[in-house]
Amino acid sequence: MSEVHEQGGTAASRPTMRDALVEAAFELFSERGFEQTTVDDIVSLAGVGRRSFFRYFPSKEAVVFPDHDGCLADMTALLEQADPTGDPVAQVCDAARLVLRMYAGNPAFSVGRYQLTKKVPNLRTHELSVVWRYERTLASHLRTRYAARADGALRADVIAAAVVAAHNFALRAWLRSGGEGDVGAAVDEALQLVIDTWGDGAAEGRAESQDEEVVVMVARRGTPMWRVVQGVEAALEP
Amino acid sequence: MSEVHEQGGTAASRPTMRDALVEAAFELFSERGFEQTTVDDIVSLAGVGRRSFFRYFPSKEAVVFPDHDGCLADMTALLEQADPTGDPVAQVCDAARLVLRMYAGNPAFSVGRYQLTKKVPNLRTHELSVVWRYERTLASHLRTRYAARADGALRADVIAAAVVAAHNFALRAWLRSGGEGDVGAAVDEALQLVIDTWGDGAAEGRAESQDEEVVVMVARRGTPMWRVVQGVEAALEP
Repeated sequence: MSEVHEQGGTAASRPTMRDALVEAAFELFSERGFEQTTVDDIVSLAGVGRRSFFRYFPSKEAVVFPDHDGCLADMTALLEQADPTGDPVAQVCDAARLVLRMYAGNPAFSVGRYQLTKKVPNLRTHELSVVWRYERTLASHLRTRYAARADGALRADVIAAAVVAAHNFALRAWLRSGGEGDVGAAVDEALQLVIDTWGDGAAEGRAESQDEEVVVMVARRGTPMWRVVQGVEAALEP
Repeated sequence: MSEVHEQGGTAASRPTMRDALVEAAFELFSERGFEQTTVDDIVSLAGVGRRSFFRYFPSKEAVVFPDHDGCLADMTALLEQADPTGDPVAQVCDAARLVLRMYAGNPAFSVGRYQLTKKVPNLRTHELSVVWRYERTLASHLRTRYAARADGALRADVIAAAVVAAHNFALRAWLRSGGEGDVGAAVDEALQLVIDTWGDGAAEGRAESQDEEVVVMVARRGTPMWRVVQGVEAALEP
């Protein structure tokens, strides 16, 4: 990730005007609350003009999520470079991990923002639109990869939603806990449910596993024993 | 569904003040656009006071989605009454179909609203928060039903997201088409992907199906034949 995509408002080596605005905004939000802070207050503390604010952020809500535009750009780039023969579900899970890494890279900022967002309905709504953009980006990658399937677009949307839900399940638990524990491992575990369900290794692939080859024999109750044994023999003896 | 939960602003037998507000709002939105219409314009056309508006709707955005509060209440009630031994995935799919029925019950209104929502970013964001409330209601039902599973809460969130994505995939295609075709069948087909993947009939449950009892025998390649036959015999002969 390039420098410009890193957490705004924190210890970047050369703070930009954008960083200064984020820093001023969060200082005021924690002092007097989000609702009681105006854009004028923010630009005045940051020592810049009102126009500069709106050059970087479309709204007061947007300044609370300064890092997501960069992360979305990184996600789009990662998926554009993805191996066209790789497992698309594993690829969108990797893309989702970029979001996790951004949060985990600055626990104090992330936990503080989570607590602020919980209290302000407008911020919760804004966050939903941020999450939605990620979900559409993942779905778009899957739609391309599943273009040959009759149910490709549906499958893409469902899997993208599942990835986002699993990722956010683990991320939110970590944020609620105040940033305790290994959130990377927790997100991996949550995403594994989606990979096991929808990834290339699921379903058809399972019987082809190399370490532990298994044979599955399915018979209706009442099938004559000779038919069953015939089936088992055929499967077990190569 | 009780009368109060039906589409506001349309041909209800006894229009309420709420209906009158919705009707006035949509008349103005289509005449001069959403952004150019104020709450004052709406109450003036409806012939009621400004206070009455805010008794029914928290914001101008909310009046665009007048029917979702009732639908959410119906969904909650349906899930509360659901058979505690039934397939929880089928139950949340049935609950999602309540939303579909609301849209399909008034195609002209639904398509008009879709076209309006597409054009106004604030409405798109508001719609995301409406969808999110449905998703949390479905997830909450699944969390209760999966309480005994170690991964119950994660699984609940992932399946709820999948149901919403599948439902909205079919609903949006119908809205985009201007309300053409059988949206009920399209939603059923989309939800079937989720039911096939996560429902009681998927995975473990399959062997317990009553009409067609089957026995599944799993053996590692290399298992001695006598052990395999022993297993098959034990399963087939009750």
